[in-house]
Amino acid sequence: MANEDAQAESELETMRHSAAHVMAEAVQSLFPGAKFGIGPAIEDGFYYDFDLPRPLTNEDLAAIEAKMKEIIAADAPFIRQEATKDEARRIFAGQPYKLELIDELPEDRVGTYRQSTFTDLCRGPHVASTGKVKAFKLTSIAGAYWKGLESRPMLQRIYGVAFLSPADLENHLKLLEEAARRDHRKLGKELDLFSIHEEAGPGLVMWHPKGGAIRRTIEDFWKDEHARRGYDIVYTPHIAKVDLWKTSGHWDFYREYLYSPMKVEEKEYIVKPMNCLGHILMYKTQKHSYRELPMRFAELGTVYRYERSGVLHGLTRVRGFTQDDAHIFCTPEQLEDEISGVVDLVRFMMKTFGFERYDLYLSTRPDKYAGSLEGWEHATNTLANVLNKMKVPYQVDPGEGVFYGPKIDIKLKDAIGRSWQGPTIQVDFNLPHRFDVTYVAADGKEKQVFMVHRAVLGSLERFMGCLIEHYAGAFPAWLAPVQAVIIPIADRHLDYARKVEAELKAEGLRVRVDSRTERMNAKIRQAQVDKVPYMLVVGDKEQASQCVSLRLRSGEDLGAQPLAAFKSRAKNAVATRSLEI
Amino acid sequence: MANEDAQAESELETMRHSAAHVMAEAVQSLFPGAKFGIGPAIEDGFYYDFDLPRPLTNEDLAAIEAKMKEIIAADAPFIRQEATKDEARRIFAGQPYKLELIDELPEDRVGTYRQSTFTDLCRGPHVASTGKVKAFKLTSIAGAYWKGLESRPMLQRIYGVAFLSPADLENHLKLLEEAARRDHRKLGKELDLFSIHEEAGPGLVMWHPKGGAIRRTIEDFWKDEHARRGYDIVYTPHIAKVDLWKTSGHWDFYREYLYSPMKVEEKEYIVKPMNCLGHILMYKTQKHSYRELPMRFAELGTVYRYERSGVLHGLTRVRGFTQDDAHIFCTPEQLEDEISGVVDLVRFMMKTFGFERYDLYLSTRPDKYAGSLEGWEHATNTLANVLNKMKVPYQVDPGEGVFYGPKIDIKLKDAIGRSWQGPTIQVDFNLPHRFDVTYVAADGKEKQVFMVHRAVLGSLERFMGCLIEHYAGAFPAWLAPVQAVIIPIADRHLDYARKVEAELKAEGLRVRVDSRTERMNAKIRQAQVDKVPYMLVVGDKEQASQCVSLRLRSGEDLGAQPLAAFKSRAKNAVATRSLEI
Repeated sequence: MANEDAQAESELETMRHSAAHVMAEAVQSLFPGAKFGIGPAIEDGFYYDFDLPRPLTNEDLAAIEAKMKEIIAADAPFIRQEATKDEARRIFAGQPYKLELIDELPEDRVGTYRQSTFTDLCRGPHVASTGKVKAFKLTSIAGAYWKGLESRPMLQRIYGVAFLSPADLENHLKLLEEAARRDHRKLGKELDLFSIHEEAGPGLVMWHPKGGAIRRTIEDFWKDEHARRGYDIVYTPHIAKVDLWKTSGHWDFYREYLYSPMKVEEKEYIVKPMNCLGHILMYKTQKHSYRELPMRFAELGTVYRYERSGVLHGLTRVRGFTQDDAHIFCTPEQLEDEISGVVDLVRFMMKTFGFERYDLYLSTRPDKYAGSLEGWEHATNTLANVLNKMKVPYQVDPGEGVFYGPKIDIKLKDAIGRSWQGPTIQVDFNLPHRFDVTYVAADGKEKQVFMVHRAVLGSLERFMGCLIEHYAGAFPAWLAPVQAVIIPIADRHLDYARKVEAELKAEGLRVRVDSRTERMNAKIRQAQVDKVPYMLVVGDKEQASQCVSLRLRSGEDLGAQPLAAFKSRAKNAVATRSLEI
Repeated sequence: MANEDAQAESELETMRHSAAHVMAEAVQSLFPGAKFGIGPAIEDGFYYDFDLPRPLTNEDLAAIEAKMKEIIAADAPFIRQEATKDEARRIFAGQPYKLELIDELPEDRVGTYRQSTFTDLCRGPHVASTGKVKAFKLTSIAGAYWKGLESRPMLQRIYGVAFLSPADLENHLKLLEEAARRDHRKLGKELDLFSIHEEAGPGLVMWHPKGGAIRRTIEDFWKDEHARRGYDIVYTPHIAKVDLWKTSGHWDFYREYLYSPMKVEEKEYIVKPMNCLGHILMYKTQKHSYRELPMRFAELGTVYRYERSGVLHGLTRVRGFTQDDAHIFCTPEQLEDEISGVVDLVRFMMKTFGFERYDLYLSTRPDKYAGSLEGWEHATNTLANVLNKMKVPYQVDPGEGVFYGPKIDIKLKDAIGRSWQGPTIQVDFNLPHRFDVTYVAADGKEKQVFMVHRAVLGSLERFMGCLIEHYAGAFPAWLAPVQAVIIPIADRHLDYARKVEAELKAEGLRVRVDSRTERMNAKIRQAQVDKVPYMLVVGDKEQASQCVSLRLRSGEDLGAQPLAAFKSRAKNAVATRSLEI
């Protein structure tokens, strides 16, 4: 069964790759001077990067699609031919990107595929003929730097999706439409949550007042819950001497993600790519007895890692992000309870934020590893035992642990079934060894601590991107940046509206009055666009009876009710972090 | 009167400077090979930096003091002589630091002062003779890099204090003793609040669990109070393209405090030295009507500024610090209300943290300034009007405003009368102009906003250093990292102690059980050393009656009381942010 799945998957991927070639042929025939970048299969479809004399329009997409249909109808065979590099250079004369790729290929002979008049540099495989390309649709155009480097030319990338049947395609297009409606970049702008500025730097997020309100709510909840579970909230600086990362090994193994050093009085500093080392230094300011363990240092620590500008994406792929990080220092005997505590916290958090479904992966020892075999065995068994005892289903990813220890990764499923990278729980044998992080055991001997890295949300930025899409911007009341808008029907109701506002604010609710000189319906529409959970309409009747007329953002009209009743409804929704408003 | 004060002040300073020379002569006679750095008068006394063959001990200080008394008794005259640089080089042959200073002096002729056998490179003035050096005491030895640069040799600095009368000296020594007892670096270590690590970098603070608990309490209070007063909490990244700071002018005017750039894909980035520019970019993502103003963006923004390692000092002079920053964008008409609101917030905050006394300074237009004369006049008058209307006494510092606008600075007086740099309120004409920050006025025209920078605590690091010393580590209950320690008299009371702990934790109180196998008195002593506000002793009697025996950290024993009574006492002290426990 699994085998059949894998075979179907690879068939689909081959067909999608062939669809990219068909698209390239269509572009070649419509734009004779086109220069070609690369055109791989990707999840759900394919893309191809083109260097064209002018920007593409949506009309172009339609024309390319029509041309592709002709090519498919013609059912020309895909023909593979090998060539020497010199022959290839002649075939792709006038195609600078292809020539660059040919220069970089390590092999002496390179593969080409031809269908009809179009030839591409390609390893294959492909379907037998263009007619085998099934249900497809071109979906979007986007700028993409050649090789993802800001310093190289910006090409035009056309994305398409392709499936084995029209029904599959249609389902997928519906999902895409829904995903587009939920896109956190679009909603982030519409709801005025955050911005990213070319002037300040791509991949660096600024949280506006409304996004800041959500972030603060999450942070406070996170800190309270961690404190309740015996974590200590700590703070460490964002820069430190690079020597620390030489000791840790990151300078060698992780260099491409590190920012270049700043020199201060002959010493080199970097912006921190992770929070672990600060926590280790703090732990080491004193000797610790086994009686003091476990120690759990938690920090909302903002870290900076280099990512190519070409791969940056909204909140989900950024250069600066705030990890909801914690490091647990414990004895081997305590490891099981600690892991169990983290898994429990993860489940509590995911439930609170409304994620019903998630997949767990347990990654075990790779070929190259730090630490001892017994250590790995103990830690891996502990992780598995915890999941078994807690009856949490998981998959094993054999050999997929990081070199420093085994780990559990959790992928969240959002409201429309897409997977998001979520919590991670990692045992680390490397850092305690390199920094000599120890405790005094019951027998009086100094022993190496077991160290656990864990993040429950992952990064605040990515998690908030995920939340925006999961809720399609319609946050539950406890997270909503504005929880209620008070809408006076006429100017003479403004005083009462202000009184309602003051009473709700005094309860710690985030509310505002829409005092614009607009009609009531326009104000209701605006509040709905802003996805505000509660709209409180106030007019003569409400004022006279100290009521509010409550509308939900769903459109449901619950009619007039005493202000006190609404107050307790809203306070309860916030206090219980209810997913229903 | 003021004139006489100034004269007395300058007399005292001259005497202190002469005392430094007397100390240098004493060191020369006790350490014949000594090399001399510099030896100025400072607040309350003087110091001198020496390069000596071995580290000084406290016994050396006593010997130097004795030798100084001999020199003073001999009453040798101070004799001024000018010399050419070449002559000076001969006089100071074998004194490499003096020779370096001679090379750097711009004048052709340099001043020297000689008393008895000791000659120093010095502009003077000095007292007439060594006998005029009055009541003095050597107070401490500290390492000090030559010129404050980590890359230059480490010298030994001897600090002394000197006054015109023995009574003045004695008063000062008492104050010093009290200050030493309160030193935040000492208390920070003893109370396990924070650490600074040479490995990570000097001037970079790590907040341990207990310090983190205090910091979090302050941050939450700060955010709640700002939200209550109509500020929006925002977040901006810690790095950004250097071009922003070129536009702002900081790259030119402020360069020495900026970290060196990091290169990312051919663009230069720096760690941010201030938060303003991020807030401006956010403001500018949309056009704003006068009806939307004022907008108040508040951020606990961690910034990094270079300071020479020689001047770094605990929490008060650091390289990375978190400003409690906000920027107000408003119209000229709104400026008065806004300034008034900030002054009110400042007074509320200072009162809450227990600062009864503070001095205000209004700094007016300097000779070189940005913006228009009318703008300056309007803003300066507004600042003065607000202070006058609110009946807040202040001093004018004419011409001491920053180039970009007038400002109010506030200095806090701590429990033992020392001044600490505190809140600041600054109008800025420079950034709105350089970044073209505007609003659409009632007449439909685009006008430049008035921008106010303000920090109420200054920096969290410095403010927390000040708080530690102000309270001598004995924080009021709402700030105390551990609010109560529960002390079981014997092991059989541990269960009840845990029950008390759980009940208090459920109320959000920070409590812990001292479960060590120590005697009750030792546990009480430990809690007093830790300056925990409340100690709850529980034994048979308390367990039987659901009581706790309450001791305050002052030593006061309030006897047994129902747990509920203590709960409400502690909750009330925390909720009202009482300064009494």
